Amino acid sequence: MFAAGIDIGGTFTKVAIISQKGRIAAKSLFETKDFGRFDLWVEKSLSVIKLLLDAKNIKKNEFAGIGIGAPGHIDSVNGVIHALVNIKGWNNVNLHDEFKMRMKAPVFVDNDANMMALGEYAYGAARGTKNAVCITLGTGVGSGLILEEKLYRGSFMAGGELGHMPINVNGPSCACGGKACVETYVGNKYIVGRVKRVLSRHPDSVLAKKFKGRFDEITPKDITAAANRKDRLAEMIWEETGKYLGVCLAGVVNLLDPEIIVIGGGVAKAGRLIFNPVRKTVRERVMQVYRHRVKIVPALLGNEGGIMGCAWQVFEKGRA
Amino acid sequence: MFAAGIDIGGTFTKVAIISQKGRIAAKSLFETKDFGRFDLWVEKSLSVIKLLLDAKNIKKNEFAGIGIGAPGHIDSVNGVIHALVNIKGWNNVNLHDEFKMRMKAPVFVDNDANMMALGEYAYGAARGTKNAVCITLGTGVGSGLILEEKLYRGSFMAGGELGHMPINVNGPSCACGGKACVETYVGNKYIVGRVKRVLSRHPDSVLAKKFKGRFDEITPKDITAAANRKDRLAEMIWEETGKYLGVCLAGVVNLLDPEIIVIGGGVAKAGRLIFNPVRKTVRERVMQVYRHRVKIVPALLGNEGGIMGCAWQVFEKGRA
Repeated sequence: MFAAGIDIGGTFTKVAIISQKGRIAAKSLFETKDFGRFDLWVEKSLSVIKLLLDAKNIKKNEFAGIGIGAPGHIDSVNGVIHALVNIKGWNNVNLHDEFKMRMKAPVFVDNDANMMALGEYAYGAARGTKNAVCITLGTGVGSGLILEEKLYRGSFMAGGELGHMPINVNGPSCACGGKACVETYVGNKYIVGRVKRVLSRHPDSVLAKKFKGRFDEITPKDITAAANRKDRLAEMIWEETGKYLGVCLAGVVNLLDPEIIVIGGGVAKAGRLIFNPVRKTVRERVMQVYRHRVKIVPALLGNEGGIMGCAWQVFEKGRA
Repeated sequence: MFAAGIDIGGTFTKVAIISQKGRIAAKSLFETKDFGRFDLWVEKSLSVIKLLLDAKNIKKNEFAGIGIGAPGHIDSVNGVIHALVNIKGWNNVNLHDEFKMRMKAPVFVDNDANMMALGEYAYGAARGTKNAVCITLGTGVGSGLILEEKLYRGSFMAGGELGHMPINVNGPSCACGGKACVETYVGNKYIVGRVKRVLSRHPDSVLAKKFKGRFDEITPKDITAAANRKDRLAEMIWEETGKYLGVCLAGVVNLLDPEIIVIGGGVAKAGRLIFNPVRKTVRERVMQVYRHRVKIVPALLGNEGGIMGCAWQVFEKGRA
């Protein structure tokens, strides 16, 4: 059996046909904004799915359905998108009904961070575990929880917002309305912001020299490159970032007692530069009983975690 | 049907016979330390259970079993106490086997904060909810999580340690080995410690006058009494305490999306003095979607939450 996974991003929409064992049979992508009108986007997505199915000669009776992951607050029971983070105008649209109407197959819609967690649980780093915390570090800090071998959604389908747990009583205001959320320390622009604030005091640093007069162009990737050249300032920025995330995770470990924490997303590409201080901080701060038990590992599926989770959702729910 | 609940405390051991509907048919207590030797304590507990059953004329076939709650790290699958917080010498004792050997009935052993959560879920403030966070404020900050209508234990049976979630990156060292745990702000002795540190600068406050030269005798109850007399310092201490707890809970709400938070224990007796600032802080800090949804309420069962949870555990597990 095969399922289609659709990952809606602010920039690209990714579509893939995935086998039950988690093999990507075919994939494609298109620019989301080119089909900014919601109905056009649905048509485009369906035509891509049909194209991919035809190309691989997959028959109707081998097709289990469509799983969709979207960045925002989603009503996964009814398949309704309440609001998306980076796409305007898609408010309270019933994605389930739109797809179902046009293609007679099961359709499941969910939050993209949840789908990434499900992907890593079904096919990736958290495979075989019972309780896992999966985090995507990027512009924001997304997360999904696998508790007792199931995706945990919470009472109002809004659970798993680890990025909005405060790590200080006082601290920066967050776009969510909160204060000192961990995202305001380890989100993409906040990491870069911290570099920029100290760069003028470190004129000899790799970053200050390379980006003289155009600090605004610095990305986490540049900080990683500088740190890999042993630039002390860049290393320190990653150490701080890892520590902030580690403080948050120590609390999450004490609360939820997971066996594994999976970290993916663009910022996680800093590798050991961020993983080392995260692990060190968690080990120093969690209760003794967890100290050598909980594993903190990189995501295995990279950018495809979400789309794999979408497919798995189809196989699992279809079975039930 | 009836079950026996045993609540092991550092000072008292409470024993009760409880009906399936949650009515306490009979209860008794004895000083834990008088039976400091573990085997003597087991004998004493069993003799109290038998006495209570006889007094109420409850027959063997009406007796469903024994549920035990203990303050510490418990292996609830095997019924083993790894270590208790306030009772020395009870390390790695198999409470399950000890009771089972002497009384042929099902025996369940668990953490006392978990049992309080289960009690409030089965018979108290969290009845009918799907996801609930239950907290006991006292010397320490205990907690138990009900997720998807079940007590959540975590991967290593050590979940639910909300008291050891940090609320600051830097802060006081905690007995658990962590730093800035919420317990180091809202635990009994820390609340009193904060009062004591500022009291000399507030010679006109109710507390400074009443406890002149003997600040060490102050308890949270005294702070409450002073606040109820509109003493500004005492009110402020409760406001701060509520804010600290509220910051932690805002993070927990964003992560777990529960519909209710139940707060009990001695410190919660401060009532609105602590509940108001907790509610205010959570409302100000959580993501908008939760703002008017999550309820924060006092525990309904008082000191009997734990023992009621113990009994319910027997009825539920006996049924399965």
